[in-house]
Amino acid sequence: MTDPPPTGTIASDQITPEELRLAARNHGLPLEALRDPITPAGLHYLLIHYDIPAVDPADFRLDVDGEVERPLSFDLDALRALPKVTLPVTFECAGNGRALLAPRPLSQPWLTEAVGTAEWGGTPLRGVLEEAGVADAAPEVLFTGLDRGVEGGTQQAYARSLSIEDALESGALLAYEMNGEPLPPQHGFPLRLVVPRWYGMTNVKWLTRVTALAEPFDGYQNSVAYRLYDENGEPGAPVSRMLPRSLLVPPGVPEFLSRERSLEPGPVELRGRAWSGQGEITRVEVSVDGGATFADAELGEPVSEAAWLMWTFHWQAPEGTHEVCSRATDSAGNVQPLDPRWNLKGYVNNAVERITVTVAQPAQVPS
Amino acid sequence: MTDPPPTGTIASDQITPEELRLAARNHGLPLEALRDPITPAGLHYLLIHYDIPAVDPADFRLDVDGEVERPLSFDLDALRALPKVTLPVTFECAGNGRALLAPRPLSQPWLTEAVGTAEWGGTPLRGVLEEAGVADAAPEVLFTGLDRGVEGGTQQAYARSLSIEDALESGALLAYEMNGEPLPPQHGFPLRLVVPRWYGMTNVKWLTRVTALAEPFDGYQNSVAYRLYDENGEPGAPVSRMLPRSLLVPPGVPEFLSRERSLEPGPVELRGRAWSGQGEITRVEVSVDGGATFADAELGEPVSEAAWLMWTFHWQAPEGTHEVCSRATDSAGNVQPLDPRWNLKGYVNNAVERITVTVAQPAQVPS
Repeated sequence: MTDPPPTGTIASDQITPEELRLAARNHGLPLEALRDPITPAGLHYLLIHYDIPAVDPADFRLDVDGEVERPLSFDLDALRALPKVTLPVTFECAGNGRALLAPRPLSQPWLTEAVGTAEWGGTPLRGVLEEAGVADAAPEVLFTGLDRGVEGGTQQAYARSLSIEDALESGALLAYEMNGEPLPPQHGFPLRLVVPRWYGMTNVKWLTRVTALAEPFDGYQNSVAYRLYDENGEPGAPVSRMLPRSLLVPPGVPEFLSRERSLEPGPVELRGRAWSGQGEITRVEVSVDGGATFADAELGEPVSEAAWLMWTFHWQAPEGTHEVCSRATDSAGNVQPLDPRWNLKGYVNNAVERITVTVAQPAQVPS
Repeated sequence: MTDPPPTGTIASDQITPEELRLAARNHGLPLEALRDPITPAGLHYLLIHYDIPAVDPADFRLDVDGEVERPLSFDLDALRALPKVTLPVTFECAGNGRALLAPRPLSQPWLTEAVGTAEWGGTPLRGVLEEAGVADAAPEVLFTGLDRGVEGGTQQAYARSLSIEDALESGALLAYEMNGEPLPPQHGFPLRLVVPRWYGMTNVKWLTRVTALAEPFDGYQNSVAYRLYDENGEPGAPVSRMLPRSLLVPPGVPEFLSRERSLEPGPVELRGRAWSGQGEITRVEVSVDGGATFADAELGEPVSEAAWLMWTFHWQAPEGTHEVCSRATDSAGNVQPLDPRWNLKGYVNNAVERITVTVAQPAQVPS
């Protein structure tokens, strides 16, 4: 690593006031909520680049335009009249784990909690693109939201593109429901894109325009953000599908300030979730000695083809302080690393989580 | 102020990893949501001392015991069969503004966003206490939640007491609904206390026991936490009803990392919310010069007798960088201070918010 740290990063483990301001509004999943197969809407992680727009559903339109034979425009009723699919999908922010990197990229300072699984309801994107008749020559489809803000010095609407293959073949939904209810404002009311298996930046919220492009999109979120930069600032590969990750439902009870866990000695069922956007989860291993040794956990069934599974591990917890870790492997051969892999903007850090657990007999409190 | 900073505080403006961990789970209101009179559940601020407990509503009981003539035990259906009241109530965390103090107390690092207004539905606490027949000699009523964790070195359930007068006369509710739905898990499912006008720590979540006490409660949350300590560590007055505060719906659009606002020159309607637990809001003033001069805003009607109002202020925004502030006054004569008033644990800092706004013609972006 260079010294001083690269531009846009900080070597200190202390968080800057700007990062705190982001952390106060964008929140993670409280990790105990990993027990739920479907995350309640208010517990699902949130990363909102600009402000939540106020959208009057009566005025809302989704326009489908660009390199298409038949430009289309839908109101919400027209979208709801199209074939409907509901699917539990695990989302994870591409920046999850960023604040555990050193030096740390200055952006939303996620630890490991930027995840959630919701049941999304909507109509397949593919059907709408086929109805519009996307031109064979269109290499990409652009998705534009109603939210506006400044990034890279330019005011813009949030917008991301997908290749035409990914737009047609990924199982993407134009989603107007979350967990059986209309989308909450913070999750894109009234309409968002949901692309199974991709990191969260793909799932454009407050979606108002789908545009078939004649040329690849060179906008901020694809060409500047969400790429795996090296330490010299060279943009590398774009961020795409999720790497495998596993997390624990933190055992025992927390201390308020430190969030450190304590529990009584004896048998304890450790459990958690695991997911990957690159294949099925084929293995989860657990370590109770900080990653020195691992043993296999039992795997449950995935909540859906695009969602996490629960894993369990029986531990005879001895007195003492232990570092508990879990490590997932997927069918594409990806394994969570023990140590973070660094990149300049702090994306896709799927290193194993480490939870410190103190196992002790309960204190005898005088009554 | 002493040097070095008092135990439990930090002089740096950088946030520690422990504070970040709290900020990643406990989130504020995204300030643009101040436009809504009633805050959607997922946008309401959250401060959870321990973990969110998983409660099976079929097993849930509320027990009313202690110094009463008739101990009572309710299941949820029995509570729902009692007289029902719904009331919009503004909540604010007692620690709101803590991270703007110097030196800063080490705890949840709130800026100004730890607020929200929900419509709570439930049965008046007073009716249940009267049905149980609280003894005349009982000076306090204790409220105990199902959530457990460690604070002050001791494992405990979250528990807070109120004086018998406050329990009977504050309009407190045993609430099982938020915004017309069953409570979300993070807001206390299936039952919580709601005490209008008090800071949020009073509103015990996952409420399972109401106990009339023969002696004042000396538990952690009343006797150690939530008191206005001086810099020598002497516990002062307990935290009780909210001081007045006003906040702006941030004008213009944000920059992603800094959250700084930009807007075009010309007329702009500044608006925001104001509330107090100590009286009615009688005045809100706005400054566009960092607090050097103030002018009166127009006040709307409060959303309820226990909730915020909206204020508006017409500004002819000139080009340049401006610091916008608002200052509320209540009918008890409390006025928001321009600078924070310090206490060791960082409670009730209601100093005026300062938002930096850059007013400029939009950049000519080449098309």
